[in-house]
Amino acid sequence: MTDFTLDCFLESGNAYKAALMLELCGADWAPRRIAFFSGQTRSDEYKALNIMGEAPVLTHHKVDGDVVLSQSGAILDYLSREFDRFGPANDGERREILRWILWDNHKLTSYTATARFMSLFQNKGEDPITKFFAARAANAWKVLDTHLQSRDFVATGHPTIADLSLCGYLFWPDQIGMDTAKHPHIAAWLDRIAALPGFKRPEELMPSGKDPATATA
Amino acid sequence: MTDFTLDCFLESGNAYKAALMLELCGADWAPRRIAFFSGQTRSDEYKALNIMGEAPVLTHHKVDGDVVLSQSGAILDYLSREFDRFGPANDGERREILRWILWDNHKLTSYTATARFMSLFQNKGEDPITKFFAARAANAWKVLDTHLQSRDFVATGHPTIADLSLCGYLFWPDQIGMDTAKHPHIAAWLDRIAALPGFKRPEELMPSGKDPATATA
Repeated sequence: MTDFTLDCFLESGNAYKAALMLELCGADWAPRRIAFFSGQTRSDEYKALNIMGEAPVLTHHKVDGDVVLSQSGAILDYLSREFDRFGPANDGERREILRWILWDNHKLTSYTATARFMSLFQNKGEDPITKFFAARAANAWKVLDTHLQSRDFVATGHPTIADLSLCGYLFWPDQIGMDTAKHPHIAAWLDRIAALPGFKRPEELMPSGKDPATATA
Repeated sequence: MTDFTLDCFLESGNAYKAALMLELCGADWAPRRIAFFSGQTRSDEYKALNIMGEAPVLTHHKVDGDVVLSQSGAILDYLSREFDRFGPANDGERREILRWILWDNHKLTSYTATARFMSLFQNKGEDPITKFFAARAANAWKVLDTHLQSRDFVATGHPTIADLSLCGYLFWPDQIGMDTAKHPHIAAWLDRIAALPGFKRPEELMPSGKDPATATA
């Protein structure tokens, strides 16, 4: 058995945040496929694992008992301590990292992921609700692009879990409708993340959450 | 000058989270009013203070330089360390607290606050977008109510900053449209928070963000 199991599926950028971190840290880990599109996260069995009914869930298999953890930001924080990678060098950096991870969850990923889900997987691209989320996502991208104008990474001078959280959905510009030419500082920052040793794209790390019969739909 | 200044306004539940924490810790603090409804958080001056353009912002006035911090979850974390109150007793508790604060930002406060803002302050209660947010908020309340069925506080056996984060908008059941009779475990938990020594309601802690001329509107 591997040291870590990640309940995840390819289409989830939140799962990608954790999968990418595991990979960049050189962890001994394996994905465990969530059949998201046939409703697995809404099942009683899954809710017993994670009452929030969300992906991803990390299990760290330890001799003195498993650590089971949900919420990508909490998983990133846990792994950064376990591997001593992509974490803060001091208290000020710790505060900045936490602040940007919270903002990502509240504003950037939250709106970006919902707009993408509704347009890409529910074919509701023209729905006013989708457009509302897309507009809020675009506001968040603008804040991030402005912030990155004068720095290489989001929270500190070096790459941290704040970067790995914020980038979760942004390597899919076509799927989220982001014109990278209009967000040059985000584009350059994504290039810096993609240049990290061990970087892989979502497709290289996780199985699809679509059932085989509908995977080509 | 007080030790802490909180840029805030009464109508913000996110600001209330920080104000309540300051008060429960017995901090020497003062609110600084944000004229939210006339657009202060969108001004260049405010964005120089907080590029995210959000309330609240905490300033800790220290002899060796001010600490300035935004994001209610990061502020709560900072204050819990400064005062050694409402924090974790061990690593497992620390993970649970972070997990629930992230979920609050992503799912509970995020949807609850937006639905409330659109219905209460923009008179868009019947708008499909408002209803979409309200339905997602109601889903989050259901998760929280189920979770609280078997415990007194959200993340640990004692009250923590996770409770203070999640309760930010929930002391306004009428404003958010929550039927407390249908969420008995949330109601009992709110009573436990309100019984904490030093507890005050938002109205007792912060000035309105409405301009005097329109405050009665």
